[in-house]
Amino acid sequence: MAEAAEGEVIVRHHYLSLDPYMRGRMNAAKSYAEPQRLDAIMIGGTVGEVVASRHAAFAAGDKVSGMGGWQLYARSTGQGLRKITRPNIPIQAFLGPLGMPGIAAWYGINAILVPKAGEVVTVSAATGGVGSVAGQLAKMAGARVIGIAGGEAKCRFATEVLGYDLCVDHGAADFEARLSAALPDGVDCVFENVGAQPLALCIERLRDFSRIALCGLVASGYDGATPTPLRDLKVILDRRCRIEGFVITDHRALYPQAIDELADYFEDGRLGWTETIAEGLEAAPEAFIGMLQGKNFGKQLVKLI
Amino acid sequence: MAEAAEGEVIVRHHYLSLDPYMRGRMNAAKSYAEPQRLDAIMIGGTVGEVVASRHAAFAAGDKVSGMGGWQLYARSTGQGLRKITRPNIPIQAFLGPLGMPGIAAWYGINAILVPKAGEVVTVSAATGGVGSVAGQLAKMAGARVIGIAGGEAKCRFATEVLGYDLCVDHGAADFEARLSAALPDGVDCVFENVGAQPLALCIERLRDFSRIALCGLVASGYDGATPTPLRDLKVILDRRCRIEGFVITDHRALYPQAIDELADYFEDGRLGWTETIAEGLEAAPEAFIGMLQGKNFGKQLVKLI
Repeated sequence: MAEAAEGEVIVRHHYLSLDPYMRGRMNAAKSYAEPQRLDAIMIGGTVGEVVASRHAAFAAGDKVSGMGGWQLYARSTGQGLRKITRPNIPIQAFLGPLGMPGIAAWYGINAILVPKAGEVVTVSAATGGVGSVAGQLAKMAGARVIGIAGGEAKCRFATEVLGYDLCVDHGAADFEARLSAALPDGVDCVFENVGAQPLALCIERLRDFSRIALCGLVASGYDGATPTPLRDLKVILDRRCRIEGFVITDHRALYPQAIDELADYFEDGRLGWTETIAEGLEAAPEAFIGMLQGKNFGKQLVKLI
Repeated sequence: MAEAAEGEVIVRHHYLSLDPYMRGRMNAAKSYAEPQRLDAIMIGGTVGEVVASRHAAFAAGDKVSGMGGWQLYARSTGQGLRKITRPNIPIQAFLGPLGMPGIAAWYGINAILVPKAGEVVTVSAATGGVGSVAGQLAKMAGARVIGIAGGEAKCRFATEVLGYDLCVDHGAADFEARLSAALPDGVDCVFENVGAQPLALCIERLRDFSRIALCGLVASGYDGATPTPLRDLKVILDRRCRIEGFVITDHRALYPQAIDELADYFEDGRLGWTETIAEGLEAAPEAFIGMLQGKNFGKQLVKLI
């Protein structure tokens, strides 16, 4: 272990977050972020505890979140390191519902979709790190919220724990008929994490003045192999629809407000969540690949301590 | 001629406006508006003079704009009738740069695209009723503005009269190469009136945080025969783009502000324009079909007096 230099801290990581965006970083092609450099620490969100500090703003014992990467310890100048000040909340929640996925959901709902009471909202990957928070925030706004998820177990969790009005299994043979039945009057807001057929079917059912928040297209494959086409832009004109793609790291200035609001909901018990935890750094690659295949249930974490 | 009943006015039409949206109304299919009823007066914007009034707000001699339809006279309760209070401006301009096309341009630029100084804006149908105003408003905002139009004559008019920085002829054999050369660093704002290949090429060249205002898709055909597909929504996510379809009649509350601003520009000589005038109501159908084929040069009008 290196020592902390003047102005630095050493953080012992407790949890590493695994997120779909990481797959994009592994491509050489230009995406919304620079590719992951070879022979460098793999990027990743982390929570942990300051174990040594020569930085005025941090003391040993502080709980922090940051982008520490796939490693047990990180040395930091404090840049991008955020103190966690809610001792009643499990620390790993700051990688999930109170971390980047939760903040992305908060932004998509509050800055793009802005669902009104009585509107219909669909959320794909409805029980995932982002989707689970998006669905619950849409419910708090008074919307009717329809989840789309893979498998009956996730769909049950969506309705029974997360409070979705309905959840449709995209693996069901009669998926399209079920989704149609769940959207008899169409959809006002689409919170999109997946792309592919579920999104195409929602687009066919857009109502006037509908909005689509494009947060992820994981089913298109982060190798870009499977495009998600839009058959005809005319529907966007006819329905006066707005589609907006966003990447949450463009909106860092909003993180404190988002985390604060989400943490309040969490402490009030209004934010249900679940997690899948892999044990130890060596389990991270397999867990990461599994998450891209939808094997996780809720937020995928790696426990490092 | 019927007499004006109590609370009504009779308007003598001076000009009828021909606009692409009319073609959509001729379809039975659901679009953003109700289909044109058969055996009813064909819808259309008009300007003219009140020749008889039993309405408190209008007097004989008032110049007015409204939706009088394809006829020489209209009887009106005053609903949708707007007094024209700028005697220095040719009355037919209130069907063009100061009418629905101009207001649509104003809305697309000011409410959707909001181009910043130095940003790159493309405008398709660059010399048309909407495009000519959109391009000039984008220039006033300090943007670099690239027009797309059909034929060298329109392109010359775009640069020499309307002030476009460049205009690319979409009929040129090397159109794609020319557009690429005109957009060496890509495009920030797309004001779209046409769809089809010009839009597809602009989408391939979107910059980060770009916006697309979808005002029309006339090249897709108002019979919906030729879709304008978006090959892969991933570009919208990667570029954090916003696409928004709009129909100006949804925003009637903004008309007075828009007309006032546009009329100020017009009186100051900052709003170049041109028009193609067909003579007499019987010339309207042929002029309408010609306009859908791009035969008009600037705003297509029919002179009725």
